[in-house]
Amino acid sequence: MTLQLDVSAAEAILAREKPRRVVLNAPDGLMPLTRRFAREMEARNPQLETILIADPTYGSCDTVDGDAQRLNADLAFHVGHNITLPKLGRLTYTIDVWDDIPFDTVASEAAKVFRSRGFGTIGLVSFAQYLRSLEPVSAILRKAGLETLIGKGAGQLHDGQVFGCEFYPAFNIREKVDAMAMLGQSSFHALGVCLSTGKPTFMLDPHLGEVTDVQPLADERLKRAILSIYKARDANSFGVVICLKEGQMMPEQSMKLKRRLESFGKRAELIALREVTPDRINSIGGLDAFVQTGCPRISTDGYTFSKPVLSVPQTEALFKVLSGETLERDFLERHHWL
Amino acid sequence: MTLQLDVSAAEAILAREKPRRVVLNAPDGLMPLTRRFAREMEARNPQLETILIADPTYGSCDTVDGDAQRLNADLAFHVGHNITLPKLGRLTYTIDVWDDIPFDTVASEAAKVFRSRGFGTIGLVSFAQYLRSLEPVSAILRKAGLETLIGKGAGQLHDGQVFGCEFYPAFNIREKVDAMAMLGQSSFHALGVCLSTGKPTFMLDPHLGEVTDVQPLADERLKRAILSIYKARDANSFGVVICLKEGQMMPEQSMKLKRRLESFGKRAELIALREVTPDRINSIGGLDAFVQTGCPRISTDGYTFSKPVLSVPQTEALFKVLSGETLERDFLERHHWL
Repeated sequence: MTLQLDVSAAEAILAREKPRRVVLNAPDGLMPLTRRFAREMEARNPQLETILIADPTYGSCDTVDGDAQRLNADLAFHVGHNITLPKLGRLTYTIDVWDDIPFDTVASEAAKVFRSRGFGTIGLVSFAQYLRSLEPVSAILRKAGLETLIGKGAGQLHDGQVFGCEFYPAFNIREKVDAMAMLGQSSFHALGVCLSTGKPTFMLDPHLGEVTDVQPLADERLKRAILSIYKARDANSFGVVICLKEGQMMPEQSMKLKRRLESFGKRAELIALREVTPDRINSIGGLDAFVQTGCPRISTDGYTFSKPVLSVPQTEALFKVLSGETLERDFLERHHWL
Repeated sequence: MTLQLDVSAAEAILAREKPRRVVLNAPDGLMPLTRRFAREMEARNPQLETILIADPTYGSCDTVDGDAQRLNADLAFHVGHNITLPKLGRLTYTIDVWDDIPFDTVASEAAKVFRSRGFGTIGLVSFAQYLRSLEPVSAILRKAGLETLIGKGAGQLHDGQVFGCEFYPAFNIREKVDAMAMLGQSSFHALGVCLSTGKPTFMLDPHLGEVTDVQPLADERLKRAILSIYKARDANSFGVVICLKEGQMMPEQSMKLKRRLESFGKRAELIALREVTPDRINSIGGLDAFVQTGCPRISTDGYTFSKPVLSVPQTEALFKVLSGETLERDFLERHHWL
């Protein structure tokens, strides 16, 4: 594989904006590539100063526009979380990174798996780095006699794209397909697709050439998500967590959840955190459970919190349970988890 | 001991400012007290909303004024890091917390230690929580036949106060005293006093009733700080770290250090981090060493970084070494470490 950063798009922005100081941030896996790009920019333009913000970032919800402003930057490049919007905040441009590894082998393997399971129509989805592979994989599956569908983009999502928390292009075609094929080595995204669509979902890993049915892992995550809800039902006191990340901060929604919890006779405190980690949550004593309006995947993806920490869809399910309604197993089947 | 939060000062601010939404932050140890205070505020005024920002905070350099603004708060209380300024940033008031545990026993014990060592004049210092104990301890030592001195405040520091990075009231009296007495259970502060003054320094712990000579620990820290400088001398590539905390962010000073490193033929990259932790530093590959303009104690206090990570005074010492000058052991003897 070779990771490709969209240098020409970045260069066009630099030529137009003529910045003196540029801030960059990127997920850890793309940091070396991003630093190399920063050095190349500086080499081409000795007047240019670059600053890499090396805090962790997990999505287009996790930009550093405010920090770039505080650092007196003229613009910021958020690398690797490609979305439909060219600009976020006041200074931040999103710069695409894609992986040009071919999917030929794994797609042929996938076709065999789908046919052996009797699936006729396959929905294709992926995350930023493999969006360019959707059409080639579609062609291979069609050649093998399968029907394919790529869902239309919506909001920040391109056609066929999913985030960890948003699934429109997958969710909107779920009734028209027999299974979902998620392109790329990311059980994180495949799990989201499986749980949000309720369809059999297979991860196509081009690096290992493996096709993985994520249903067993999804079942386990769902079970754990449900268990947390029932644990939280019996809690008397709640921390209602506001996440301070730029694209995740929703204080008014947190206020609403707090009031709703209080309407059920629960005591609730508003707590804000930049990183909602077991370390920070476990350090807050005297509360029985937490609900949080930041990244829903914090709650569902195997963090070892000592108390229940519910995402927004889990919290809404909790309200149903507290109202005496039955908790259906499909409460995560929605186009987004916020 | 009972920790006392300055409720009447906070109440006076609330009465004057009549806020609707108040943000609070506090060091981990004072979080329970701060949360209790928040609940009392809300109980007294049902219109008031409070939000606790539960990210770690390590000093008055580590406020959350920007986050309070983003959360549409009307004011913020930064609890426990008492300074001479009543207000920091646009919204943040500092609220004092003190510990009223008596020092009688440990001060009498200290008097014996000082006399047995032949010390005549003792400088008294402490951090925010024990400033009210400086005069009572002074009286006990004087009664035992010792002379005492409490250094004048400067900048954000009250009389006799030290931070982890600023030592004016200790440094300015160092030539007039035989030893320093640091009130409170904090080898962190005692080490800073010892290394910045070069004087014998004793920690008076009122909880355990123990008097501890911190010289051995200070010698070990100094040795390690020097070792890092010599390791960094041989480095070819440097990360120059800007800390993103509100009171620690100094991009222009970092720029200067970068240019200075380059003038010695080193390659340097600017990197910004909110928390300068081993986890983040160790994740940045391809660099031989780091210098950082955030909290100097990150560099000197036993973090397990895999590469040298120099504070500002260490970096200045490095420049001396790179210029062929001798590195004197007193390079940390200055009134502040930034």
